[in-house]
Amino acid sequence: MKIIRSIPEIKKELGRHRKRGRSVGLVPTMGYLHEGHLSLIRKARQDNDVVVVSIFVNPTQFGPNEDYREYPRDLRRDARLCKKAGADYIFYPAAKSMYPKGHSTFVCVEGLTKNLCGRFRPGHFRGVTTVVTKLFNIVSPDAAYFGQKDAQQSVVIKRMAEDLDMGIRIEVLPTVREKDGLAMSSRNSYLSSDGRKRAATIYRSLQLARDLIKLNDKDAPGIVREMRKMLVPVATKIDYVSIVDPLTLKDVRTITGEVLVAVAVWMGETRLIDNILTRY
Amino acid sequence: MKIIRSIPEIKKELGRHRKRGRSVGLVPTMGYLHEGHLSLIRKARQDNDVVVVSIFVNPTQFGPNEDYREYPRDLRRDARLCKKAGADYIFYPAAKSMYPKGHSTFVCVEGLTKNLCGRFRPGHFRGVTTVVTKLFNIVSPDAAYFGQKDAQQSVVIKRMAEDLDMGIRIEVLPTVREKDGLAMSSRNSYLSSDGRKRAATIYRSLQLARDLIKLNDKDAPGIVREMRKMLVPVATKIDYVSIVDPLTLKDVRTITGEVLVAVAVWMGETRLIDNILTRY
Repeated sequence: MKIIRSIPEIKKELGRHRKRGRSVGLVPTMGYLHEGHLSLIRKARQDNDVVVVSIFVNPTQFGPNEDYREYPRDLRRDARLCKKAGADYIFYPAAKSMYPKGHSTFVCVEGLTKNLCGRFRPGHFRGVTTVVTKLFNIVSPDAAYFGQKDAQQSVVIKRMAEDLDMGIRIEVLPTVREKDGLAMSSRNSYLSSDGRKRAATIYRSLQLARDLIKLNDKDAPGIVREMRKMLVPVATKIDYVSIVDPLTLKDVRTITGEVLVAVAVWMGETRLIDNILTRY
Repeated sequence: MKIIRSIPEIKKELGRHRKRGRSVGLVPTMGYLHEGHLSLIRKARQDNDVVVVSIFVNPTQFGPNEDYREYPRDLRRDARLCKKAGADYIFYPAAKSMYPKGHSTFVCVEGLTKNLCGRFRPGHFRGVTTVVTKLFNIVSPDAAYFGQKDAQQSVVIKRMAEDLDMGIRIEVLPTVREKDGLAMSSRNSYLSSDGRKRAATIYRSLQLARDLIKLNDKDAPGIVREMRKMLVPVATKIDYVSIVDPLTLKDVRTITGEVLVAVAVWMGETRLIDNILTRY
């Protein structure tokens, strides 16, 4: 496995593979890898001749008061995990090579980025779609792998790839969870031991929604109220508890088909998100 | 020469050429071709194994009160000219296949699109950069060819290609002019015979600027005033007469190096642009 920092170098390296007709799978990450990332790398390994994991804490997707500086980083550990999961390359660019002086081009998906996290993190998805476009252009993968935990991100990236005719297959893999149900996230490392315990309630609130829907409860606002009752005692702050259409991400009132139940809450200083797809 | 309307079909066709290691040149146009376009096609022919001319009157780059509907179209004539100039393919998509229902992704270049035409055509460059990104992703050219007449567009597209790591060489070719100096443009077909005569003054105003600069006049606002004196009697309206830095497109006060002298004026209902690059 090779670690490559330079954009021209990774382009050249992958160009050689392409010439020989090899397929390339890309797993874009911000590093500090967990089982969720590793499941993506293993799937990319199954599907492709060449597997690239990008590790880049992307400044443009963080707001001015967000955790860009504190975001956890550990390349040595990540490299070990990538190698074990079957990666061929880690692409590990510097921020100043991804965004040199004068950079001023952005990719935006409208509509889909208004609700959910988009309401609370203005500019976040613009940063995500811009960096993913850059990574796609640098790596030219056949397929790229994302986790369902970032549900809105997946929908937005699928939309972008289709709208801009990128010709890249977007694969979204299930959320990987801790034993108590907490969705794996690099940000879980921020949690205090008390916060960590309380965080398990997030998934329990999603299970409650699933159970109510299975019991024929179609009233989305009513279900959201029940979920909030569970979350209020444990969360420092609730950004949103929403039941939305899984394609348009617009709020649903009456549940008649598949829905995305999505939550963003703060445990102390840590913002956590989670979601499930379920159907009436 | 083949005319292809379908996105998957042109992708497939060009994929076959790529597999054989052939280089591809793209000339993006809105059709109604003139000598300016043909010079681009001929250069693409010299440089590449395969030449694609796209003809697409792109709705997203027209404002609500602009000439999208009236924009001149003549595929039969264009096809004849493309073939003669050496094109292998005309890519001629329908608007609804380029922008199917639900399309909501846009590419924006900030900063560079604020001045000049960007001030008078809000959203125009967003439409241009979005459609050019789509064409680039569909055709995957090695190089793309644009005319210096659309100076701001060229600078914006170069910036975009670099910022998003597109790996496509952007070639900008000199403006082709009528005998009296008028820059060739599909929109010249709108002009009345009187307007057509008056339009020659645009280039004469640019030559005046060049002459003054060569005579050591460094005062950009003073030169702009002289140009305006020439244009006011012939133009229905002046959008701008500007002397800007050719890279940043910001207004220059004191001319110390290369500058872009750029004009946008109305002759009757027709908006015409032109520019020259010159240096102190």
